[in-house]
Parts: sequence; C-alpha cells; structure tokens
Amino acid sequence: MPVKPRRVTTDVDVDRAAEARAVAAAIAIPAHVVQSKGHGHGGTAMALAPLSHVLFSRVMRHSPSNPHRVARDRFVLSAGHASLLLYVQLFLTGYGLTLDDIAASRKLGSRTPGHPEHGHTVGVEMSTGPLGQGVASAVGMAIAARKEAATFTPASGLLDHTVWALAGDGCLQEGVSAEASSLAGTLCLDNLVVIWDDNGVTIDGLTTDAFDEDVLVRYRSYGWRVLQIADATDLDEIERILRLAATRTGRPTFVAVTTTIGAPSAEFGGQPAAHSGGFGADELAAVKRTLGFDGDATLAQLVAPEALTFCRRAMQRGLDFEAGWATDFAQWAGENPDAASTWLAFRSGTDQTAATAALDAVEVAAQDTLVATRKTNGQVIQALAPAMALWGGSADLSGSTNVTVPGTAVSATNPGGDFLHFGIREHAMAAILGGIALAGPWRPFGSTYLVFSDYLRPAMRLAALMRLPVIYVFTHDSVAVGEDGPTHQPIEQIASLRTVPRLAVIRPADAAETVAVWRRLVARPDGPAALVLSRQDVPVLGFRSGLDAGVAAGGYVAWQSGTGRDLALIATGSEVSLAIAAAKRLSTDDLAVRVVSMPCVEWFAEADPVYRDEVLPPTVHARVAVEAGRSDGWWRWVGLEGEVVGIDEFGESGSGTEIMAARGVTEDHLVAAALRTLARSTIRL
Amino acid sequence: MPVKPRRVTTDVDVDRAAEARAVAAAIAIPAHVVQSKGHGHGGTAMALAPLSHVLFSRVMRHSPSNPHRVARDRFVLSAGHASLLLYVQLFLTGYGLTLDDIAASRKLGSRTPGHPEHGHTVGVEMSTGPLGQGVASAVGMAIAARKEAATFTPASGLLDHTVWALAGDGCLQEGVSAEASSLAGTLCLDNLVVIWDDNGVTIDGLTTDAFDEDVLVRYRSYGWRVLQIADATDLDEIERILRLAATRTGRPTFVAVTTTIGAPSAEFGGQPAAHSGGFGADELAAVKRTLGFDGDATLAQLVAPEALTFCRRAMQRGLDFEAGWATDFAQWAGENPDAASTWLAFRSGTDQTAATAALDAVEVAAQDTLVATRKTNGQVIQALAPAMALWGGSADLSGSTNVTVPGTAVSATNPGGDFLHFGIREHAMAAILGGIALAGPWRPFGSTYLVFSDYLRPAMRLAALMRLPVIYVFTHDSVAVGEDGPTHQPIEQIASLRTVPRLAVIRPADAAETVAVWRRLVARPDGPAALVLSRQDVPVLGFRSGLDAGVAAGGYVAWQSGTGRDLALIATGSEVSLAIAAAKRLSTDDLAVRVVSMPCVEWFAEADPVYRDEVLPPTVHARVAVEAGRSDGWWRWVGLEGEVVGIDEFGESGSGTEIMAARGVTEDHLVAAALRTLARSTIRL
Repeated sequence: MPVKPRRVTTDVDVDRAAEARAVAAAIAIPAHVVQSKGHGHGGTAMALAPLSHVLFSRVMRHSPSNPHRVARDRFVLSAGHASLLLYVQLFLTGYGLTLDDIAASRKLGSRTPGHPEHGHTVGVEMSTGPLGQGVASAVGMAIAARKEAATFTPASGLLDHTVWALAGDGCLQEGVSAEASSLAGTLCLDNLVVIWDDNGVTIDGLTTDAFDEDVLVRYRSYGWRVLQIADATDLDEIERILRLAATRTGRPTFVAVTTTIGAPSAEFGGQPAAHSGGFGADELAAVKRTLGFDGDATLAQLVAPEALTFCRRAMQRGLDFEAGWATDFAQWAGENPDAASTWLAFRSGTDQTAATAALDAVEVAAQDTLVATRKTNGQVIQALAPAMALWGGSADLSGSTNVTVPGTAVSATNPGGDFLHFGIREHAMAAILGGIALAGPWRPFGSTYLVFSDYLRPAMRLAALMRLPVIYVFTHDSVAVGEDGPTHQPIEQIASLRTVPRLAVIRPADAAETVAVWRRLVARPDGPAALVLSRQDVPVLGFRSGLDAGVAAGGYVAWQSGTGRDLALIATGSEVSLAIAAAKRLSTDDLAVRVVSMPCVEWFAEADPVYRDEVLPPTVHARVAVEAGRSDGWWRWVGLEGEVVGIDEFGESGSGTEIMAARGVTEDHLVAAALRTLARSTIRL
Repeated sequence: MPVKPRRVTTDVDVDRAAEARAVAAAIAIPAHVVQSKGHGHGGTAMALAPLSHVLFSRVMRHSPSNPHRVARDRFVLSAGHASLLLYVQLFLTGYGLTLDDIAASRKLGSRTPGHPEHGHTVGVEMSTGPLGQGVASAVGMAIAARKEAATFTPASGLLDHTVWALAGDGCLQEGVSAEASSLAGTLCLDNLVVIWDDNGVTIDGLTTDAFDEDVLVRYRSYGWRVLQIADATDLDEIERILRLAATRTGRPTFVAVTTTIGAPSAEFGGQPAAHSGGFGADELAAVKRTLGFDGDATLAQLVAPEALTFCRRAMQRGLDFEAGWATDFAQWAGENPDAASTWLAFRSGTDQTAATAALDAVEVAAQDTLVATRKTNGQVIQALAPAMALWGGSADLSGSTNVTVPGTAVSATNPGGDFLHFGIREHAMAAILGGIALAGPWRPFGSTYLVFSDYLRPAMRLAALMRLPVIYVFTHDSVAVGEDGPTHQPIEQIASLRTVPRLAVIRPADAAETVAVWRRLVARPDGPAALVLSRQDVPVLGFRSGLDAGVAAGGYVAWQSGTGRDLALIATGSEVSLAIAAAKRLSTDDLAVRVVSMPCVEWFAEADPVYRDEVLPPTVHARVAVEAGRSDGWWRWVGLEGEVVGIDEFGESGSGTEIMAARGVTEDHLVAAALRTLARSTIRL
C-alpha cells in the first residue's frame, strides 16, 4: 500500500489579521533585539520573516513538541548569521524557546547563540555559519532521506519528507555549495529545496561587484527546477511557490526570492549596513510604527496574544501529523512486518553483536606478511557494511582508497544504492557526509588521499563541532606515495588534523590495529574520525596481547625488551615497524627499549592517566617519536631532551622508499636520534 | 600609439607531413614512457597531444629560449597529472628538456616530476596536481595581466597576452574553479581561455555518474563565451577555435573539446583504465603502429628529425616575437618615457628605500593605548600600497579585516583598480592570489577571518610549495571574536597553519610588532605569510630596543625582570600583554621572569641557534607558553615539565572576555601554571 505523504493542512483563513501580526512580530523582534544589544544580525532575519513564517506555519511538516520526529521536514539555515529568524520561529511555533531566550541571544550560556548550534538549541537541525555548508549538508540530508526510504520502506511514502535550505548570496558564491548542487542535480534529489535570498547586497557592497552571474541559469545547468517568488512579502504567493517547490518532479528545486535586507526600514532597507548592528533607536521606532506597533513597544508587546496563538497552532498540526503518520505506519507495518522490524532495528542504532561478529570474521593477514592498511580497511568496510548502517563512497578514488563494496551506486533512479560517487568534490563530500550523519543513525564514510584532506576542512570542522560520527578514510598517508610528488604527498596533514578539537585522527600500524580501531569506532560513535592509512604495504606485527584495549586507549606498548634504563620510541602507522626494527638494534643488556604505538593521540590524551603513565612512564626521559609527517605535535610526548624523527619539509617526486630516505625517516636516523636522546637525558639525570 | 598585440605567424603549410609526425610523437611518447616505467599518467597526455601541439606550435605566443619573457602567453596545466603532455611540448619546442629527461620522469631528482613543478622545470608556469587549482590561479594571472597593462602601459597593448588553462573534469567539479570562474565572468577577463578536456570518464567510471550537469550552460551563466572544438584530432579545427578563443570580446572563453582518453589505443581508448598505468607491451606496440611507428620503436625513434625541426621553429618564432616586442616597446617608451620608466621600476621589484620610508611614516599608537592589530595592519597596508606593488582585497570582509585602501575596485571596465572584491570565495581568493604572485612582481594580499582560513588551505599549500610571496590577512584571531560563537572562533587554525611547510604564520603582539613584521615581509619576499591579527583592542607595549631585529628573528625578550632562577613565559599576539602582566605578578627578588614574544615560530625556529639560546636559554627549564588557541605545537618550546595555557576545545557564543575566561586564558591561570611549572622544575633540578 503506497501511503500518500500527508501534507500540512493550513487554517490560514481563520484569522488573517492574527497572522499579519505574527509576521509583523517576526520582523520587529530581530530589529529590536539587535538594537538593544548593539550587535548581531537583524537585516536578513527581518527580510525573510514572511517567508520563514510561511515555511513554519503553512508549509513545513514538523512537530514542535517532538522536534526529532521521524519523517519531519528539515529546515537548514545555511545563512546561519540570520539565526534570529530561526529562533523567532522556534519561539512562535512552540519549540520551547522563550522571548527571554531571544532577548538573551548571543549571551554566554544562552540557548540562542550567535549562529545556530545543533544539539544546543532544540529545533536546530544543523550548526551553520560558515557559508555554503548548510546548502551542501542539506544535499546530504536529502540523499540520506531517499536512501532510508528506498532501503527500508520502499514505495510506501512513509519516510518521504522535504529538506529546505535557506541560502544567502554568500552560500551560493562558496564552491562547496556549487559542488553539492551539481551532485544534487545528477542524483535528481527532488526532496530538496534551496531557497536563495537574493538581496543584492553583501557586506562589502553590491553583490554584483563580485557576483554578476546568472544564478538561475546556473542552477538550471545543474538540472534543477528553478522557481521564483514574485513578492517576498506576499504570504499567499510565498506559500504557492513553496508548495510547488515541495512537489516531487524528479529534480531538486531552487527558489529565488528577491528581498530587501532590513525592510521595512526606510534608512537601512537594502543597504549593506543592514547586515549587522542596530539601526539606532529612532529608526527602530520607525520600523515598529511601520509594522503597526508603538514606537517604544517592548519585546513582549511585539507579540500579540492572537499572533502567538496563531503560530502555536503548529503544535497541534504537528501532533496531527504524528498521529496520522502513526496510523499510516501501523497499516504499513501490518502489511510489511519484516520490513517494519528491519527499519525499527535500523532506527535503534548499531547492533553491536552483529557488528562485532562481522569484525571477528575479518581475516587479518598473518604476522610478517605485508599488507597496506588501506587494504585491511577495505576488508573491514566490506565486512561491516552488511552488518550495520555503514555506507559511503569516495571522491573518485574508490579503488585507490579501497572503499569499494559490492552492489550498485546511488543514482537518480537508484536512491537506495550501496555506495555514492561523490565526484571530484572533496569539500562537498565532507559536507554531505555531515548531512547524512545528521539525517539518521548512519555511519557515513568518504574517502580520498590524505593530502586532499585540506579540501575537506571547513566541513570536517563543523562535523567535529556537532560530534557527528562521520568516518573520513584518508589513504596514501605519507611521502611513501612516491612518484606523484609533493602535491600528492601529505606532510602537514596528520599534525594539522590533530589540531581539530573532537576529531579523532587514527593511524593504525598494521592490519591488526586497523581492525582494532574499527572496534572502537563501532562501539563509540561519539564524533568524527579520520582514518589515516598507508598506500604501501606494511608488515603485520607480532601478536600483542590486549591489542584492542591498547588501541582503544589510543596507545600501547607494542614491543619491549631488556632491563635497565629505559628508552621509549613512539610511533604511528607505517613507522611502528621501523621503530621496532630500531628498538631491536638499540636493545642491550643495559637498555630497556619500548616501542609505543600511538594510533590515536587524541584517545591517548584522554585515556586514564594511570594507564598513560604505564605506557609512557614519567621516569622515562629518553623519548623519540617517529612519524612520516610534521613533527609539531610530538614534542608534547618527548620533551626538550627528546627528538622527533619527522618530515618538516615538502616531499618530492620519486619512489616512496627513496623519498622516505631522502627525508630522513630511516632506521639509521631513528637509532641515531635515540642515541643522542639517551646521551642528553644521561647528562641531565 | 596603441600597439597591436603581435600574434604568432605560423608556417604550418611548409611541412604538413613533419607536423603530423610531431603530433604522432607527442601521442606516442607518453604511452611509451608510462609503459616503460609501469606507472604514470599517459591517457590524457595522449588524447590532448594534438591540442597541446597546436597551442605550443601554432597559437601561443612564447619564447622557449627565454621562458620568462614578459608578455608571453601563459599555459597552466590544471590537469597536472597529464604532466607528460607539458614535458613533451617543452622538449619538442625547445625549452631545454631532453628525451632523457622525459625518460626519467617521476624519478627522484629528475626535471620531470610526477606533477609539474614551478621553479623546478623551466617552462612550467605553475605547480599543479590538486584539481581545480590551475583554473583558479589562471584567473589570478589574467587579473594580474590586465592590471599591469592598465596600470603601466594603458592602451598600448604591449603587455596584453592570453592565459590558457587546460582543465579536466576533475578541475571543473572542484568548487574552487567554480568560484574563480564566476569571478572571472564578473570581471570580464577576456584574456583568459579555459579548455575543458571532456573525455567522459573519471577514475571511478563514467563522468556522468557524478557529474551530469550541462557544463557549457554553466559557463554561459557565469558570463563566459563558450566555444567547442568539433574534432580533437583536427589540427586546423583546433587552431581555428583556439585563435577565436584568444580574440578579445569582453568575456572569458571556455573551450570544450571532446576527447578519447588513451586514443588511439583500441583497448584502452575511452576507458577509465587509460587514466594511469601502462597499456601493456602489446597494446603499446599497436598504438605505435597506428601512429606510423614500428611497434618496437624506441623513445628516440619516436621523434623523427623533421618533426623535431618542425617544432623547434617555435624558438625562432619566439625570438621574432621578442624582437618585435622590443621594437614596439622602444617606440612606446620613446613616446611615453615616464610611463616606461615607471613600468621598468615596477618590474625591477620593490624599492626598499621607498617602502621603508612608508613604514617609517606609519604612526604607531602610543604606548599603553589600546589598538587592535588588525587596525595597525590596515594602517600599514594603506601606507605601503602607494610605495610598492602591494595590492589585494578581501572575501567580502574588507571593513572588518581593515584592508580598505583608497581608490576604485577592479572591475570589468576598470582592470587597473586599486583593490579586488573576491566575493565570498575564500578558496578562490587564495588560488587567485597565487596566480597574481606568479604573474609578476606583485605582493598580493587577501583577507578574511582566521577561522575561515580552513577554506583556503589547498591553495595556500600550493603557494607555500611554490614559495609565492602572498600575504594572507587573517583577523578575528581567537575566541575573543565573541558573540558570533564557535563557528566563527578560531581554535585550531594557528597551530594548524604552522604545520604548513614554508608558510610563515605571524601573530604580532601589538602595533609596534605589526609594523616590524611588515619590515621583514617587505625586505624578504621569500614565501607566503599568514598574518594573524586581533579583532579586539590590545595594549601597545612599552619600548623594546631592537624590536625590528627581534621580530625578524621570530621571537625576542619583550619584558624581563629580577635575578635568580629563571622562568620564561612565551606568548604571541594578544597574550603577550597577558604574559607581561602575569610576569609582573610572579617576579620576586629570587625569580627572574622573562616574557618571550614569539610572533613567528617558523622564523624563530630558523634563527641563529646562538640567538635562540639567548632568548630561551637551555638552562631555563621552567617555561610556560600562552596562546588563545590549540596547544599542540607549543610543547616543543616548553618541554615535559612546562605547561601550555591554550584552548584545546571549541569556543562558544558570548562576549570575548567571558569566553577567554571560560576557556582559561587569564592572568590567574597563567600565574598558576607558572607556579606549577616552577615547582616541577625545582624537583627535577
């Protein structure tokens, strides 16, 4: 039984006057709040108040009292600086925000920070602010919505919903939105609507000073349907176009709306100065009067009781939507019990037993055989994908990064496919992965070469900020990449990624560590992880007892020998076997050498201090770290007497082995560094 | 006297047969080399050999024996993996590359690395490989060319030349090329031609799997003229379209050419597998035979003497072009002696005396007054811009980042403008700045908020690799940004930027240091610099003797007191005054406290070790670093007993002062950290 998606039924005819007052309030509140604080962004929130009102009160399917309701429409405020627009609607339609919250906006600890923060304010679907990201992540949400529906409730319409993104000129100038929009067109995401606030001005002046393209034609070239709202203040016109936009036509929809930033201010309307900052007391009063309020109306006085009542009907409509959905679901589940339980299981999160069994079944290469960690990682992905909601793809490097899985690609006609071709669009890939993670209990992954992680950074940062459990697969992790030369050889990327808060940067030493890493990733989906994997084969190290726990703690003693004074070699990834070889040369009757493998510095830094001191005893002053990349972060672990054998310069074209040697990452250099360090710490001790 | 730009006069009628053999060689050489090495990218170089031949032998104005010749056309191989295409033309047309060089491609130390490297191989205009960058930097080259001509030789046509960029599907999928192409359209850069190699396949499969847009319509939407080459193997057709593309019509030109990657291989032609790797001995032999060679022809046998002779005529044409240009210039200079000497002065680089005088004239705020370093930086830019070839703009944050200069914006009708509106396109800004720096002796700058430096990274990395003297102005450099919240508060950016080799990351403490920083930047244009500047006001510190030298050395003792045991506080930027305040509290009769201001860690790390030991004596074991950002890199300078007062978590929305306190960057915390460090180092000593 195909269920027709239930649409919102509006009751706007009931009280047009009340609605007009609600819209007036939605315009006046941002102007009032920004003026009272002396900072903040009011102009866009004002200009788009009618449109956001229509979205929240007439068009969107949502349930303010149950903001996480499945199959709700998503609203992404890509132009995040207009946060007041969103906060006002969350207040008016009953998400629990209060006028006091709005008055406290941008204050430390308030529920209304300067830019919307997902997980902080109920009803905020995504943290936004860096421009372009919301549009690109909305593409991910739309992909995820289609995939979930096609996978679990095909042809039922049950999970169908619309993803709405509100974008400014800035969002559309940023390349990340262009990348994602092109892919959205290719995939025919007809559950996606991007609304362009075409206000003609940017902070520096006229938009056309730097952006004179024909945006509508561009979106048509991507394969989108393009609509225009003729009058940004005509609620019925807005509703008509937005309802049209939400119809499924096989194409994503782009809605252009020409607005006057800061309207109805006579002085600031249409001016770049309306972007941020107050309009001054007099002009605020004039705006209020234009809107039918007293010039000195307080915040509370801006919200007429009937206006609030009007907007709060969204709560009842939301409950009606939930009830209707429950009925539809019950009917469908009755007819499709297996599918229903499969979907419910998906929604309840990873089945740890099944995932563990899949991991246990991964055939790890035998000790001393040679296998690239990217290869083992590919094995793990293939094993886990059928056992949990793990899926993703690559920015056109599926084979090289070993993330291929059996099955079909997601496409326009195959939304439930097994993997995604992101195209050569690393930045959009990261933003889309964020959107997929926001959409549901997926563990999305995306892959490219480590050196190109630079392209992903703004979107990765947002994922870290939101603690999204995205997995970035970065292979070809050092100058060992070889002949492709310095543009393709990562140097600074590992150290640089480690500086991102809440991002776990993980560089396993061998096949066994790679599997162990995934055990923690599966068990604890608490934030994004960057897997840093070798292109070249590396030896599978000897058996290490407690490997899983050691890896989960970020570091452990992978090899040790001897008694007497202690020397610690700290290594990651392909350099762990190098460190063990050096340790074997260094070990004598008088010298106890330990090799600490530290696949994840972040995890190790957060581990129990007692454990940390066992692995790296404070009494061990002679320490050398080795990693084929920038040394910057390692001094924390080796101290002033220690040394870091790293690579602080760019690489060059040549064989991987030659470049490693040319840049000093060799057993000989490591031994020499260890001997120097021992000498220094002897003098000091 | 307006000089008509001299165009290449070709002599293709002379020997069509020789030319055909030259093209055949250009196709066969990549196939041969890749097969003989077992790796490398041959397919695109083969497919585009006819086009690149026409460019280098029929259309482009260049002088192989004088590759840096002013007013030459530029050729940017944005699809850098097709490096063999370029190397083959550089060999054939006489840039000094040999067949042995080509045979040694991708070998350590060869002149023919895996991807083209500017400054390493004569004739390579830009290092490319990371996709999209070449297209975006070509936009910068075209902007710079127009600006130089409009500024110094207006209406003469003397400096007019065409910038050619060769792009693959990957380049056009990347957002950075979209951003730059949109700006190119807005600025009507009719001296720019982007050629799209439309080969229908990518590494993962069909291009349309992820990229089904109408590229031609998209480029039209940007305001470009769009041309198509009907047959990628028809030299006359290629020439006709490329000559048309080079005509000045007020718009940039996009040339689409449908090619068959790996053609004429029957087995690999048009297949993703043609992208990289050899075709196998048999298929290589077949390709050679198809091209008229023996199946077992050696590399040398692929180059018929008459083919080489044909191509080497480019050298004489180049000398003719130079001679003609010299005549034109002499005539123009005779009529415009002042303009000529002004231009020659520009070309000879910065007048250090004039720049120094301009810097000396900057009115530095008085001691103890409060001024944001972004403001002083703005003063410096305003002072320097008239005195040297310093110019740039902002990604729509001119005012906030204080980079406004008097004058007019660069635009379609005003190519010689004083500043550039990059639009809200940080990534393209960085790539364009790179192109401007490549184009001539400019010192280009671009500005945005520090947190958005993430958007610029791939292009910044290339600038660092090429040692381009670009200046990135990053303001709003810490959580002190305040109310805009965590999406706008940099945490990891400073530490992260410091990991980029060859990039100087500079965070001056006050107005005086800001001016001192510029003294070194002006004097030594040896690579890119990221200026990290405060939004908030910071106190101008007391007089420091030898300030310029100390700043130029990356760090110096900014304050010290007392005698006895030593404690060192290391700080940058806005935290230097905090460190001095803490030092004043900590100083006692028994404790000598020094505050080291370290505005540029990279410069300090490269400074004379004797000087470094004076500033941070090895005997000073008690060290604390303070910086309102990630602590990762500071442990190198404080050791295991030291402490870093930094911010390792994201910020939050609130007043800057509150967030600084909430994240622990306070005088009290610094004092406490210093006391703990002193206690630890006492125990150890």
